[in-house]
Amino acid sequence: MEKAKSILDYETVELLDNEDAIQIIDQTLLPGETKLIKLYTAKEIWDAIYLLQVRGAPAIGVTAGFGIYLLTKLVPVPDDTPENHDRNFTLLHEAFEKNKEYLASSRPTAVNLSWALNRMEKLFLTLGEDRSLTMAQIKERLREEAQTIKREDIEVCRRIGEYGLTLVKPGDGLMTHCNAGQLACCKYGTATAPMYLGQERGYHFHVYCDETRPLLQGARLTAYELHSAGIEVTLECDDMSSSLMRQGKINAVFVGCDRVAANGDAANKIGTSVDAIVAARYHVPFYVCAPTSTIDMSLKSGAQIPIEMRKPEEVTTMWYEKRMAPEGIDVYNPAFDVTDNELIAGIVTEYGIARAPYTESLKAIFEEKKNHPIQV
Amino acid sequence: MEKAKSILDYETVELLDNEDAIQIIDQTLLPGETKLIKLYTAKEIWDAIYLLQVRGAPAIGVTAGFGIYLLTKLVPVPDDTPENHDRNFTLLHEAFEKNKEYLASSRPTAVNLSWALNRMEKLFLTLGEDRSLTMAQIKERLREEAQTIKREDIEVCRRIGEYGLTLVKPGDGLMTHCNAGQLACCKYGTATAPMYLGQERGYHFHVYCDETRPLLQGARLTAYELHSAGIEVTLECDDMSSSLMRQGKINAVFVGCDRVAANGDAANKIGTSVDAIVAARYHVPFYVCAPTSTIDMSLKSGAQIPIEMRKPEEVTTMWYEKRMAPEGIDVYNPAFDVTDNELIAGIVTEYGIARAPYTESLKAIFEEKKNHPIQV
Repeated sequence: MEKAKSILDYETVELLDNEDAIQIIDQTLLPGETKLIKLYTAKEIWDAIYLLQVRGAPAIGVTAGFGIYLLTKLVPVPDDTPENHDRNFTLLHEAFEKNKEYLASSRPTAVNLSWALNRMEKLFLTLGEDRSLTMAQIKERLREEAQTIKREDIEVCRRIGEYGLTLVKPGDGLMTHCNAGQLACCKYGTATAPMYLGQERGYHFHVYCDETRPLLQGARLTAYELHSAGIEVTLECDDMSSSLMRQGKINAVFVGCDRVAANGDAANKIGTSVDAIVAARYHVPFYVCAPTSTIDMSLKSGAQIPIEMRKPEEVTTMWYEKRMAPEGIDVYNPAFDVTDNELIAGIVTEYGIARAPYTESLKAIFEEKKNHPIQV
Repeated sequence: MEKAKSILDYETVELLDNEDAIQIIDQTLLPGETKLIKLYTAKEIWDAIYLLQVRGAPAIGVTAGFGIYLLTKLVPVPDDTPENHDRNFTLLHEAFEKNKEYLASSRPTAVNLSWALNRMEKLFLTLGEDRSLTMAQIKERLREEAQTIKREDIEVCRRIGEYGLTLVKPGDGLMTHCNAGQLACCKYGTATAPMYLGQERGYHFHVYCDETRPLLQGARLTAYELHSAGIEVTLECDDMSSSLMRQGKINAVFVGCDRVAANGDAANKIGTSVDAIVAARYHVPFYVCAPTSTIDMSLKSGAQIPIEMRKPEEVTTMWYEKRMAPEGIDVYNPAFDVTDNELIAGIVTEYGIARAPYTESLKAIFEEKKNHPIQV
């Protein structure tokens, strides 16, 4: 019998260059069904991002990079010689800008989406100035850049996993909140990276996943991906953390983050700071896994991080089908909360682990990044 | 236009003596529909308790008291004179025991159910020894006893409300977890008693209700009953407590309890201790509302309180309809957790507010109870 596939055998986002397609796992069908779908057209790529078939800031960025490359590649170029560079580049440029604007509109608030598109555009415009290049060569360079964005994401996650792994020991019970997993990235994830690397090395972790109300990413995605990778997983409701820690079942908490301020205050999915406070009570170390791209040194503290408020139906109506709360009830539904730096035992980045005082240690991390940028 | 009825206009459990029926609010239909149903037969009463149409330890106790009275009343008695006392009492006794055993089997673990049935039986047997009584007189005394159980419950809750009200001020933001409300009792509830009394006196509280996963009693019942009583209510997920307290929106937390140990450790619905830990972090006082019937002086600490584990489907499958977690996933689903006494600012009983050290203050509460029992 063939061995059942684990989530680690799939890639969240993959370029099928010979098919002119992007292949993704349709995350709206999880955990019920693991279905790979192929995106060929601008509309299909736009829909996949808009409908959350692909989600998580890094994964969206990679999808956008592949998307803008593919759509540029598909522009037909007559007489593609250096002599016709200017005429042909104008043709390509027009299509590029139109597609860039269209893809960027799929989720306007996702930072990595516009970041990836801008990065691709910057290279594209630079190449446009080199009249010795054919359009085929420019297209090839775009492909390489999009693949580099993906490889960088994987390398960043892998490094976070390596650093994170130094903080725990085989057999540990680990807790996580929401999905900062492979499904939000390209491989390994951020908070889950130590878990996957540990699994590869026989660490036998037992991972406790908060279900993460209101949208249940912990139950639907994190429990699913870790479980499918063969990691021992237990699912629990968000209000069960104290009960677990009181019994000594949790040795460390790993969470992802959406934005870290210069002082180490970390904004992440609502409920993260509850875990941090409960962990402090039971002397369980609480770690934030943060690619340096999420660290915003321009913000002095977490108080400056704007918190998105979301619609009440996410809380009152499960899956928008059946009401679970009275009509007309007021609802508090912030998407994120801020965890005070003093509750964080370490911020795990791809350039090492920052420790308190964070104002200094995070500066050192960026110094290291400047001096030894990732080469993939 | 007639004023819309509030939940305070209804009684959770009511004896309709002229109709030989018990009237309850069918809690399985909340919050969608407020429907009163009448229970006439032993089977109907048994079903109502078993199916959670009536729930909450005090409310179940009162239903059982009314139930055993009604079923005894309905036994036909020939020639009901003191001369036939022995023969007729044997007739009644047989029916009483059969019905008592049957009703007690509806929810065997509910303490108040057997407590109320035993209390009724004790009186019944005592009356049986008095040969000057007719069966009509014995039935009347059973009715009075059942009504006394209910009046006592209301008085206990009202007193808890009065004491609780001294801990807060008009305009305060209050948080609560699960449903320790009127729907679990006969009137006022325990944790909600200060809220209802405050509402009657124009205190204008703003109450924040944890939805309380997995079974959502906070969303379905507490938010419903407070909202329908005109109290300003906001519903939030359990993992949003830190976000709210960080903004200073909560001035005090009131929760109910299932069992309090002699040292003040309190077992209550899972997640209660998370609120207590988060409240301590933000210096918000955390109060446990506990009728003395829930204080178990035979237990030295919370470590001795057994914790019921419930089935995984409550977490993985919302309303048992749609899966929200992968098949085969392990689930942690305890019904209760224990809040350490040092996190509790006060235990509010019907005989006053116990403060740390609880080992002493709770003893004093029981002394007061012995010297000044409630008369209703």
